[in-house]
Amino acid sequence: MTDRIIADYQLRTGIDPERAAATIAGEQSSGTFLRLAGETAALTERAGARVEILEPLADDGQPALPGAAAGQAFSTWRMTLSWPQETVGISLPNLAATVAGNLFELREVAALKLLDITLPQAFADHYPGPGFGVEGTRRIVQVDCRPLIGGIIKPSVGLTPLETAQAVRALCDGGIDFIKDDELQANGALCPFEDRLNAVSNVLDAYEAKTGKRPLYAINLTGEVDEMLARHDLVVARGGNCVMVSLNSVGLAGFTALRRHASLPIHAHRNGWGYLGRSPDHGWAFPAWSKLWRLAGADHMHVNAIANKFWEPDDSVIASARSLLTPLWDDTPCTSMPVFSSGQTVRQIHETRACLGSVDLIHCAGGGIAGHPDGIAAGVEAFRVAWAAAEAGETLDDAARKSTPLARAMEVF
Amino acid sequence: MTDRIIADYQLRTGIDPERAAATIAGEQSSGTFLRLAGETAALTERAGARVEILEPLADDGQPALPGAAAGQAFSTWRMTLSWPQETVGISLPNLAATVAGNLFELREVAALKLLDITLPQAFADHYPGPGFGVEGTRRIVQVDCRPLIGGIIKPSVGLTPLETAQAVRALCDGGIDFIKDDELQANGALCPFEDRLNAVSNVLDAYEAKTGKRPLYAINLTGEVDEMLARHDLVVARGGNCVMVSLNSVGLAGFTALRRHASLPIHAHRNGWGYLGRSPDHGWAFPAWSKLWRLAGADHMHVNAIANKFWEPDDSVIASARSLLTPLWDDTPCTSMPVFSSGQTVRQIHETRACLGSVDLIHCAGGGIAGHPDGIAAGVEAFRVAWAAAEAGETLDDAARKSTPLARAMEVF
Repeated sequence: MTDRIIADYQLRTGIDPERAAATIAGEQSSGTFLRLAGETAALTERAGARVEILEPLADDGQPALPGAAAGQAFSTWRMTLSWPQETVGISLPNLAATVAGNLFELREVAALKLLDITLPQAFADHYPGPGFGVEGTRRIVQVDCRPLIGGIIKPSVGLTPLETAQAVRALCDGGIDFIKDDELQANGALCPFEDRLNAVSNVLDAYEAKTGKRPLYAINLTGEVDEMLARHDLVVARGGNCVMVSLNSVGLAGFTALRRHASLPIHAHRNGWGYLGRSPDHGWAFPAWSKLWRLAGADHMHVNAIANKFWEPDDSVIASARSLLTPLWDDTPCTSMPVFSSGQTVRQIHETRACLGSVDLIHCAGGGIAGHPDGIAAGVEAFRVAWAAAEAGETLDDAARKSTPLARAMEVF
Repeated sequence: MTDRIIADYQLRTGIDPERAAATIAGEQSSGTFLRLAGETAALTERAGARVEILEPLADDGQPALPGAAAGQAFSTWRMTLSWPQETVGISLPNLAATVAGNLFELREVAALKLLDITLPQAFADHYPGPGFGVEGTRRIVQVDCRPLIGGIIKPSVGLTPLETAQAVRALCDGGIDFIKDDELQANGALCPFEDRLNAVSNVLDAYEAKTGKRPLYAINLTGEVDEMLARHDLVVARGGNCVMVSLNSVGLAGFTALRRHASLPIHAHRNGWGYLGRSPDHGWAFPAWSKLWRLAGADHMHVNAIANKFWEPDDSVIASARSLLTPLWDDTPCTSMPVFSSGQTVRQIHETRACLGSVDLIHCAGGGIAGHPDGIAAGVEAFRVAWAAAEAGETLDDAARKSTPLARAMEVF
């Protein structure tokens, strides 16, 4: 174990890489552009960032970001920096300013991607991590040994509270495990949070009274800190079992305030991730970014999905999902349940199972379930049959011969 | 006036731009990949986003981001979308999910930059905006008709509280208007917040007792929400006059919680901006991004500086600073005071004055003041003389003939 904070980057530079790395380390610790009186060797030794690794990687030859210094050909490097924990403090916001602060703006940087972060155990002692994670989430809905099948309230916006409740009733009647609000639907005048909560809770209560089951309903409470805390308590008072929040909308400090108050699983939506992570050589890689939220306490995190409607290739999706299921520390794993969502139908299930090597996920579909020609129950059943087949090593076609819902799904999707 | 939310983008796409724009508008409002039962024409009319403008721009011919659909040559467009306020709600976090959510991840998008946002007046009624801004900040330090000259505590990290207080004493004795903590220095074990506050406040109290003046000291209170609120109150109790926070570390909800609690100006640091705004065609443009923080209540915002040590060209810096000084609404301007900082010396002052067309700024220097060969007082005096010359239309060389501090600064810098 180390008491230093470690960050791995992919660095692209047009100057001598050792000088670039030293400049970055200086900018992010004790450096200034003139060596000042107070900047002694002893101070640099106790407070300076260190370049631990600098190794060449293949360079993609693409144009550099604007303003990059270019004294020689652009080259790409794996760069590992480390910081003493005692200058940063055990604080996720200040960690972010250290490992992902000004350095992205340096001229010496032609592009920079933060690949991973390794933290001292003290962070695990100070931050709560997920309150439920995979096991806790499964316990609430009593679903073992298979993914939670999730439905999405669609259309994204425009439904009234009663229309939303009708959509939830249809998903309940279809036997869904998990229902997700849209990230665009929080508290607009057309569908106020409290009215939506009440209307949907009436439906969930009635369904639970009849069947003994209550799907997880991740109601979107994204808002200001006091709003989120008050909304969380309303959800608890109405017997709710999950809340959803947009991470990039709220930020680390607001999210942590919610987590420290919360007694329900937090479904973490990553909308906006495209401006943080889509560039191949600049910004954040998901395993680094998600560690901050895992420590802060995200129970479920979105990772796109196999053959999604977004830009992301499958190997990137799987690397994200696997990173969430990899413990941060042996005794403090902080694992989050990956949420596969975006353009999903029964067609992607076998590959998802094969690539992820696990059934510890929430598999969400909007049109891929609700658009089933025989209705939602058939759509959910088709998903369950396909997952069982994937788990049993049976092909989708073989499974469809024994399941009308799956066969009908495959006619449409 | 409009009751719709409007966002301007620069869109790059490899498909028919009208189809791309329609897909984006659908993704960010009532769309799904299958048209579902609830998605009626009436619902789309009341809840759908509209494409208001789609006009061609010059395309830079650079490689597209990964995963971009490419049915035809890549082209670049000015795209303006609008949303009905009643589906989004008067909420900055939910606004962010709407104008800067999933859309950056769409295949139809080869790159996307959010250029500007125009909001209904209801946002101005609901959010506090800056509590001090330019006028309030000037009033505290009684500096009119010229920039506040700011010093930075350097080295960035590694100083103990007493060493920090010594640095503050030297800046006070030099006649500085403003003192900024480093964004890397918040509450590490080597320099705990409360110890630093106490040590520095003793110095500031003594200086004020002697001279009747107290520079603004923007102490970095970045942390969790409860920590920030408690630290703010400690600053007030010690007679402090400013706090600093790292925006990207804390996020919108945490920042707003601080603002609603605060009775001091909030100095807003944008470290991390390089992963949001450096790409020429993807992510955020500063005028759009900063509007969220201005509404939330940032009194001072960093904008880099002319001829800075970072990547950013001068025209981009000036556009950022001007946007901060441009009112959001006539009767609710929400102007923030731009902070010019990064590799600054007396050499950049004339161009800053000429390009900005204003003296409403905080001009910060670390080595450019503290590294003056005759000490900090001479460094501050050189900055003041240079600004007075710029304001009077006198050249730097002419001014230096009448000012030894300026002449000596020009020998070194």
